[in-house]
Amino acid sequence: MATITETALAATLDHAILKPELTRAQVDAELDIAAQWRVFSVCVRPSDVAHAAQRLAGTGVAVGTVIGFPHGTTSTAGKVAEAAQALADGATEFDMVVNIGALRSGFDEVVTADIRAVVQATGLHITKVILETALLNEEEIVRGSTLAEVGGADFVKTSTGFAGGGATTAHVRLMRGSVGPRMQVKASGGVRSYADALQMLAAGATRLGTSASGIILAEARRGDQGGAALGAVDNASY
Amino acid sequence: MATITETALAATLDHAILKPELTRAQVDAELDIAAQWRVFSVCVRPSDVAHAAQRLAGTGVAVGTVIGFPHGTTSTAGKVAEAAQALADGATEFDMVVNIGALRSGFDEVVTADIRAVVQATGLHITKVILETALLNEEEIVRGSTLAEVGGADFVKTSTGFAGGGATTAHVRLMRGSVGPRMQVKASGGVRSYADALQMLAAGATRLGTSASGIILAEARRGDQGGAALGAVDNASY
Repeated sequence: MATITETALAATLDHAILKPELTRAQVDAELDIAAQWRVFSVCVRPSDVAHAAQRLAGTGVAVGTVIGFPHGTTSTAGKVAEAAQALADGATEFDMVVNIGALRSGFDEVVTADIRAVVQATGLHITKVILETALLNEEEIVRGSTLAEVGGADFVKTSTGFAGGGATTAHVRLMRGSVGPRMQVKASGGVRSYADALQMLAAGATRLGTSASGIILAEARRGDQGGAALGAVDNASY
Repeated sequence: MATITETALAATLDHAILKPELTRAQVDAELDIAAQWRVFSVCVRPSDVAHAAQRLAGTGVAVGTVIGFPHGTTSTAGKVAEAAQALADGATEFDMVVNIGALRSGFDEVVTADIRAVVQATGLHITKVILETALLNEEEIVRGSTLAEVGGADFVKTSTGFAGGGATTAHVRLMRGSVGPRMQVKASGGVRSYADALQMLAAGATRLGTSASGIILAEARRGDQGGAALGAVDNASY
C-alpha cells in the first residue's frame, strides 16, 4: 500500500471534537492536540466554534463545525441559521447532515434544496454533506452523492460517527465514483489508525474525519503500518 | 402498584417518531398509530412537523418536535430558528436538548440563556428540556433540572433515546424532587411496556415519551402488568 508522509497526512485530517458530553476542559485538550499535530482543521460542536477559533488563532488549524448534526432532519431554516451563526463565530468548514429521511423517501428536490440553502449560507467556504452511509443502501448512497453535487457542496462525507457504523472502503469508492472531479470525498467514523487512514485515502478519500488524529499521526511518524516500518515518515516535520 | 385507565394513560403519551432513517411512509404509519390510540401528542422530526400537523388535523393529537436534537450543542441562534420554524409549521410542544457540554462545564448562565431563548421563541406553548441523564451524574441532573426551571421551561425530561441509556425511576424521582410544583417531569427512553409506564408515573412523571405507544396501550387495555389482569382497564374507551 502506498504510504504518505506525516505532514501530508496531517493536511487531510479534520480532528473531530463532537461528543455532546465533552466539557470545556476536554475540548481544550483536543484543540491543543490538533494544534500540536498541525491537522488541517478541527470539527467542533456549533456552540464551541467561537471558543475554538479564539484558541486556535495563529496555529494554522482551521475551525469547522457540523450542521443539523447528527440526524439531518432539522428544518432547512434551522440548518441555515446554524450555518450563519457558525460563520459569524469563525467557522470556515461546514459539515452538514443530509436529510436522511427525505433521501430515503425519494424526495430529491427537498434534499437538494436543503443542501443548496446551507451552501449559500456558508458563502465561499467549504461545505460537506454527510450521508450517514450506515443507514443507507447503495442506491441511496449513489443518489445522495449526486444530490450533494447538484446542491453545490464541495465534499460528500460518509458518517457522523454516531450511527453505529463508520466509513468503509467500499462506500468511499462508491461515493468517489458517483461524483465528478470537482467533488471530494471525506471518510469519517471508525478511522482509528494509520492503516485505516491509508486505506481510506487509497479508496479515494482526500479528507479524513477522526478523533484519533494524535494516534494516527504518531503511527505515521513511526511508519507504523501494522508493525512494518516503511521509511516513509517525514522526520523533518517536527 | 397503582394502575391507570387506558384513556388516562394515552393522555400522558408523546409518541416518538424520531429515528433519522424513517421514510415518509414509515412516519405516516406511526402518525396513524398515534391517531388510532388517541395519544396526547406525536414527537416528530423538525422537517416532518408541517406534514404531521396536516395529517393529524382533527384527530385531537397534538404535534410536538425536538430542538437541538439529540446532542444539544447547537448554537442558541440555531435552536431559536428551529423553534420558530417548527412553530410556524404547526408544532405546539417543543422538546429541546440542554447544552450538555455547557451543563457539565458548569456554565450555568449559558445553559439558562439557551433555555430561556427557546422558551421565548415558543411563546405560550409547552417547552421541555431534555437533560440526557445517561451522560450526567446526579449533581448535574439536579442542577440541570433547576436551570430548566430558572429558564422558564414547563417540563424537565430524562432522555433523547439516542444516547444508549433511557429513563430510570431513580432519575425521575431525583428530577421531580429538584423542581417546584409548577414543573412537570417527562420520562423517555426505554419506556416499552405498560409496566414501565406505571413505574415512571409512580416515580413522578406526568408525561412519557415512547415509540411503543401502541404496545403499551394494548397492554393497558388488557390490564397486562406482567401478565396479571388487574381489572383496571377502561373498556368503555374504545
